[in-house]
Amino acid sequence: MAATSPSGVAPRSGGTVDPALIDDLVAASRILAAEGVLDGYGHVSMRHPTAQDRYLMSRSLAPALVTADDIMELDLDSNPVDARGRTMFRERFIHGMIFKARPDVMAVVHSHSPAVIPFGITAVAMKPTFHMAGFLYQEPPVFEIRDVAGWTNMLITDNRLGAALANTLGQNPVALMRGHGNVVVGPSIPIAVFRAIYTEVNARLQTTALMLGGPINYLSPEEGDIITNKEPGDVGRAWNLWRAKALGK
Amino acid sequence: MAATSPSGVAPRSGGTVDPALIDDLVAASRILAAEGVLDGYGHVSMRHPTAQDRYLMSRSLAPALVTADDIMELDLDSNPVDARGRTMFRERFIHGMIFKARPDVMAVVHSHSPAVIPFGITAVAMKPTFHMAGFLYQEPPVFEIRDVAGWTNMLITDNRLGAALANTLGQNPVALMRGHGNVVVGPSIPIAVFRAIYTEVNARLQTTALMLGGPINYLSPEEGDIITNKEPGDVGRAWNLWRAKALGK
Amino acid sequence: MAATSPSGVAPRSGGTVDPALIDDLVAASRILAAEGVLDGYGHVSMRHPTAQDRYLMSRSLAPALVTADDIMELDLDSNPVDARGRTMFRERFIHGMIFKARPDVMAVVHSHSPAVIPFGITAVAMKPTFHMAGFLYQEPPVFEIRDVAGWTNMLITDNRLGAALANTLGQNPVALMRGHGNVVVGPSIPIAVFRAIYTEVNARLQTTALMLGGPINYLSPEEGDIITNKEPGDVGRAWNLWRAKALGK
Amino acid sequence: MAATSPSGVAPRSGGTVDPALIDDLVAASRILAAEGVLDGYGHVSMRHPTAQDRYLMSRSLAPALVTADDIMELDLDSNPVDARGRTMFRERFIHGMIFKARPDVMAVVHSHSPAVIPFGITAVAMKPTFHMAGFLYQEPPVFEIRDVAGWTNMLITDNRLGAALANTLGQNPVALMRGHGNVVVGPSIPIAVFRAIYTEVNARLQTTALMLGGPINYLSPEEGDIITNKEPGDVGRAWNLWRAKALGK
Repeated sequence: MAATSPSGVAPRSGGTVDPALIDDLVAASRILAAEGVLDGYGHVSMRHPTAQDRYLMSRSLAPALVTADDIMELDLDSNPVDARGRTMFRERFIHGMIFKARPDVMAVVHSHSPAVIPFGITAVAMKPTFHMAGFLYQEPPVFEIRDVAGWTNMLITDNRLGAALANTLGQNPVALMRGHGNVVVGPSIPIAVFRAIYTEVNARLQTTALMLGGPINYLSPEEGDIITNKEPGDVGRAWNLWRAKALGK
Repeated sequence: MAATSPSGVAPRSGGTVDPALIDDLVAASRILAAEGVLDGYGHVSMRHPTAQDRYLMSRSLAPALVTADDIMELDLDSNPVDARGRTMFRERFIHGMIFKARPDVMAVVHSHSPAVIPFGITAVAMKPTFHMAGFLYQEPPVFEIRDVAGWTNMLITDNRLGAALANTLGQNPVALMRGHGNVVVGPSIPIAVFRAIYTEVNARLQTTALMLGGPINYLSPEEGDIITNKEPGDVGRAWNLWRAKALGK
Repeated sequence: MAATSPSGVAPRSGGTVDPALIDDLVAASRILAAEGVLDGYGHVSMRHPTAQDRYLMSRSLAPALVTADDIMELDLDSNPVDARGRTMFRERFIHGMIFKARPDVMAVVHSHSPAVIPFGITAVAMKPTFHMAGFLYQEPPVFEIRDVAGWTNMLITDNRLGAALANTLGQNPVALMRGHGNVVVGPSIPIAVFRAIYTEVNARLQTTALMLGGPINYLSPEEGDIITNKEPGDVGRAWNLWRAKALGK
Repeated sequence: MAATSPSGVAPRSGGTVDPALIDDLVAASRILAAEGVLDGYGHVSMRHPTAQDRYLMSRSLAPALVTADDIMELDLDSNPVDARGRTMFRERFIHGMIFKARPDVMAVVHSHSPAVIPFGITAVAMKPTFHMAGFLYQEPPVFEIRDVAGWTNMLITDNRLGAALANTLGQNPVALMRGHGNVVVGPSIPIAVFRAIYTEVNARLQTTALMLGGPINYLSPEEGDIITNKEPGDVGRAWNLWRAKALGK
C-alpha cells in the first residue's frame, strides 16, 4: 500500500522540523481521541513549517497510540519522503489535496465525529448555537461521494477524490462527508483541534435545541464573522489544558 | 446447571489452542465491557481453530473479569469437554447453534447493547448511517421468542431456542432479540468485536438522525456490500488499540 | 437533628452483624454512586439480619464516601440505637416505614436516579423494555407528596410521610416520587441494587424507544412475572463485578 | 490586556484571606470542570470575605488547572490589586458588576454549561423538574447582548456589558446568556457550585421530560420557595464529596 511518486523516486524532505511542533501534532492526535472526536480511526496533519509543499502525519495507527516516531513526511500528492516500510493512512489524500487547494490551511483533521454524522445524512444544516462554534457561521457543505464516483467504499483513497472533497470544502473551515464523517481545517494545529472539538459539541447542542422545538436563535453571520475573523477567542487556554493532559503533563 | 451430552459422556477436546488466540478471546470480552456493549452480562465465543465442531467461551462470569483460565471448550450442542465443576452461561446455546448453522462464522457476540434494544421493540429497522456500520446493509432481523415458545423468561436456555435464533439470524451478521439484546457474528474475533461495537454506535447515530427529522440518506445496499465484502476497512487498527487497552498494554 | 424515641430512651440493638454483610451494604452505597444512580445524595439500607424490627444505614454522608464505620442501627421508627452524635439522613423515615410495611423487603434504595425523574413528572408510565428490567411489569406508582402534605420541601422528613410513601409503594418493587426521585426495594441487597441500576437503564431505553416512535413492544406482564418470580436471572454475576470494583477488588 | 483603574493606580487590597477559603475557590473551579459544567473555559469567583468591594478569581487559565497561586484580587470595576503581569479573564466584568449590583451574592459562576445552552436559544423556559433544582422556581431570564451592543463577539468585555448582564440577572440565582452560556450566583461558594451543577442536571432532565411529551408537573413556585429560602437542603454533603475529589482528598 506504500505509494511512490509517478517517477518512482521519493520526494525530497522539506527539512527538519522543531520537535516541539511534532509534539503538538502528537498531542493533537491524542487530544482528539480523548475528547471523543476520534476513536480508533481518523487522523490529523500539519503542513511542513518551512516547506509549503510538504505535510506531516502519523503512519497508519489508532490516534491514541501516536508518538513522535510515527510521524511521516509526505508531498502534496501524498507520496512519502521516507516510508521505511511504514503503512500510511489510506485516506491521506484528504490532507494532501486540501493543503494544495488552501494555502491558508496549516492543519487538517479528518474524523468520524459522532454527533456530526447525522447532519451529513439529513437535510438539517449545521449552524452555530454558541460563540465557541462561531466559525460555523460558514455553514458546512456536504460532500457526496456518489456524485463523483458512484458506488464506493466511501473512502477518499486517491488524489482525484481528495481534490473533489477539497473542492466541496472551498473556503470553509468545515465540510461534512455524507455517511462517513467530516474534515476541519485551520491556520494552526490548536485552531484546527479547537474547531474539530467544538464542531462535535455544537452538533450535540443543536440536536438538543431542535428537540426542544420552536424557532432557534442561532448566532448571526455577523456575530460568527466577528468571533472568527476580527476578535477571536483565546484558543490557547483550552489548548494548554488539552496538551498537558494528552502528553501526561 | 452443568450440562452433559445425552450419552452422559463428555465430548472429546478438539485439541490445544494457541494461547495468543485465547488471549484474543479474553481481550474481546474485556473490550466489549470497556466499550459499553456488555455490562455485567453477555458473552463472546470463538470456534475452535482446528476443530469445526467445538467452540470456546468463558465460564459464567462478568465479561470484565474474564481471564484465560476461565475459558472452557464445548461441543456444538454446548456440552462441556472438561467442566471441572465450573458453571456455564445459561445462554451458551446461542453460540453452539449459530456455529452449527453457520460454517463461515468463527466468533459470536451476545449482548444487551443498550442503544440497540429500542430497535428490537419498535417498528424502526436498523440501517447503516456511516461506513463503519456498512455491514448493516443487511438489515438485522428481529427474533421474537414468543413465536417459538410463548411466554418465557426471554432467555435462550436450550438448543431448540438456540436453533430458532440461528434460523432468524440466517446469513446476516446481526440479529436483534426483542426485549433482550442482539447477536453479532463474524469470520474472526476482531471482526465480530468491531461489528458489535459499531452496531451500538450506529444505533446511537440513527436515533439522533431520526430525531433531526426528514428523509435520511442511509448507505445504499451497494455501498454496504462494497465495504463489507469487496473493499473492507482496516479492522486491525482499532483492534490493536482496543486489545492493548483491554490487556493493560 | 438527632432523633430519640418518644420515651427518650434509645432502642436496644438487634445484635451484632456479620462484617461481610456490613461490607455488602457499604459496597451497595458505592456501587450505586459508581453507576450513576446516586450522586452526592440518596441512600441504601438493609434490614437487620436477625432482628426484623431494626435496620442499618449510613450516617448522613455522600454515598461514595461510606465506610463500615459509618453504618448505624435504627429501629423502624428511625430512632438510632447508638447515635454517638452522628448526624442521620433527614429522609431515613423512607426506609423505616417501608421495612415496617413490607416484611418481605430486606433492602431499600432511595435515589434521584436521573433518567427516572422525567417519568415521575409526566403522564408516561414506566414499562419494561427488556428482560433485565422485567420486575417493572408491576408498573411503578407515582407518589405525590402534595396529596399528603400540600406545599413542602419535597422531603420525607417524618414517619407520617414515610408511611404515606410506603402506602403508595404497596407491593411493588419500585415507586416514583414526583419531582424528587424513587424508591426501590428487594429481598436482598444485591437484588435491590440490581433493580435500582436497571430501573435507571430501563428509563433511558424507554425514552429512546419513545423517541423512535410508533407502538412499542414492551415485555408482557406474563414475561415480567416469569423473570421476576419464577425463573429469576443470575444477579450474582453482576453483583460480584460491582462489589469487586466498589471495594477495590 | 492588563486593566488598571482610571487613575492608573492599582486599588488597595482588602486584606489577607484565610487559605482554606482560597482552597474552596480552587476546589470550586476544579469541581465545576470535573462535573462537566466548565470545560477549558468559564470561571468562578468569590467576594473578598472582609472587604465587600473586592473579589477574588483566578488569572486566565483553564479551570481544571487552577491552584491557589493563580488567585488574584480585583476591585468591583475589575481592576487588579497586584497584577504582577498575570493575564486576567477577558470576561471578569461579569463578576465585578454582579458583586456590585447584588450585595447578597458571595460567589459567581460563569459557564458554557452544555445542556443549558439550548434553553438560551429557544423559547422554552427553564423550570425546576426536581427538588435539587428548586432554586429555578425563579425562572432564569435570558440576556440578549444584541439589545445592548448589537453585533459583538458575544463576550462581556467591559463594565457596561457587565452591568447590563447584572441588570438582566436582577434578583435571580441564574441568568442565561443567549448563544453563550449562563451565570449562577449564591450566598457562598458551595451554594453557587451546587446551583451551577444542578442547573446543568435540571436542563438534561427537563429536555428528557419534554421529549416524553404531554404536560409536565414541574415543582410549584411555592415548593421552590420553601426549598430555597425556608428549609434548604444539605449542600455540605455533596460539597464535601466534590471538594475531596477535586483536591485529591
